[in-house]
Amino acid sequence: MRRDQGPGVTAGDTAFQRARRPEQKRQRQDAILGAARQLALRDGVRAVTLTGIADEVGIHKSALLRYFETREQIFLELTAGEWRGWTAALHAGLDAARPGAPGSAALVADVVARSFASRPLLCDLIPHTALNLERHVSPDAVRRYKLTSLGAIREVAGVIQRVRPDLSEGECLEFISAMASLAGATWQMANPPPVLADLYAADPQLAPACVDLLPRLRRTAEILLAGLIPSRNPPRAGPGRRRPAGSSPRSRRSPGA
Amino acid sequence: MRRDQGPGVTAGDTAFQRARRPEQKRQRQDAILGAARQLALRDGVRAVTLTGIADEVGIHKSALLRYFETREQIFLELTAGEWRGWTAALHAGLDAARPGAPGSAALVADVVARSFASRPLLCDLIPHTALNLERHVSPDAVRRYKLTSLGAIREVAGVIQRVRPDLSEGECLEFISAMASLAGATWQMANPPPVLADLYAADPQLAPACVDLLPRLRRTAEILLAGLIPSRNPPRAGPGRRRPAGSSPRSRRSPGA
Repeated sequence: MRRDQGPGVTAGDTAFQRARRPEQKRQRQDAILGAARQLALRDGVRAVTLTGIADEVGIHKSALLRYFETREQIFLELTAGEWRGWTAALHAGLDAARPGAPGSAALVADVVARSFASRPLLCDLIPHTALNLERHVSPDAVRRYKLTSLGAIREVAGVIQRVRPDLSEGECLEFISAMASLAGATWQMANPPPVLADLYAADPQLAPACVDLLPRLRRTAEILLAGLIPSRNPPRAGPGRRRPAGSSPRSRRSPGA
Repeated sequence: MRRDQGPGVTAGDTAFQRARRPEQKRQRQDAILGAARQLALRDGVRAVTLTGIADEVGIHKSALLRYFETREQIFLELTAGEWRGWTAALHAGLDAARPGAPGSAALVADVVARSFASRPLLCDLIPHTALNLERHVSPDAVRRYKLTSLGAIREVAGVIQRVRPDLSEGECLEFISAMASLAGATWQMANPPPVLADLYAADPQLAPACVDLLPRLRRTAEILLAGLIPSRNPPRAGPGRRRPAGSSPRSRRSPGA
């Protein structure tokens, strides 16, 4: 589809010409990332090939590899960009909230759930990172990506802790890390191919396979937020928690967590 | 490695002979599944090819496809078997527990965390199911698989509810469904290739990328269990929860959840 737009055409016009000046190189990289993004949103990350991206940009596959190590590095760069946009969305959704105000847990749960549900590319990319992307790029590229993704998680944990000052920074990190993993896993379940979506919808026995992403993420966020304080170590008596300190011999604690 | 054991050799002896009797067919299918399991445990699911499995069994790839639709169907069958073993482990770990006894939440969290952490093949397979496996088999094979996986989740939810009678069946389903998704996602993060494990260990900035599977799963299970009751709708005041009923206009509820 980019072929009908500016960047695709531009890149096509200069096909097989090597971008030498830094701004030319940056422009070509942006065209490649834009094409990969469009194809991934249309067909799903798993289905996008290096050749498909090169065709979309209008350059030869070998030319594309002057700008990125591998197909996986292209998607790792896209994931890093998605994390940056996601961080901005959390600031936009929570920076104005009054710390500890009534409803702050519901607000955090809703903003976090929407921040993922409104980013299909990020959700699709999340499970691909550890499974594929990080395995097919240089350690240096993984390091750059990790500094971005871990930085985004840490910054968002801080945004949440400002709204929920009753939670520790570590608890906010536990919460948002679990939500990111769940968003990636749940998005895949919530977006089966049409033939399977029809299969699940048609068979009452398969109804639990039909997952609605936003309410599922919001609900899990509410459960996690509600459990962080009562699950503190040393454990406190409370609803859903009936453990006197050090009771079960099997209840070894997570270090730091 | 199976080549050094019974099944591999047996299959090798009968290479290119077609198994016609039901028990022969079953034996051949078991040899194929056993070889796929060994290779997946050694190299990771992502790295195992149909040719690799055929070589391990000692039959031709085309012969292998008489017994399974695709590479993905072989792994979907393995996943179904893993869910059955996992269900048995939950029964073994929790059927003797006294309902609602002190420490029951810690016990459930520990048994559930161990049930995944001790099953690397199941954890590796979980993210592959929606991402790859279910997309490359017939709808009928997906349906058979889903009935097994959904049945396992439902049965384990019942096992947990017996130990935690204060939770509803729906809450136990929410809990174990989230834990299964987290086990799949977290296992991938906890098992990076050696070059990345070294990278993460060497750089203090990347320390958060080092994940210890069992304590992480146990801790998240404890948080989820602690949050299920306080997050009930209508919401109740309580630790980590300061929302008077119907306060935030954004706090739409998950249908059924």
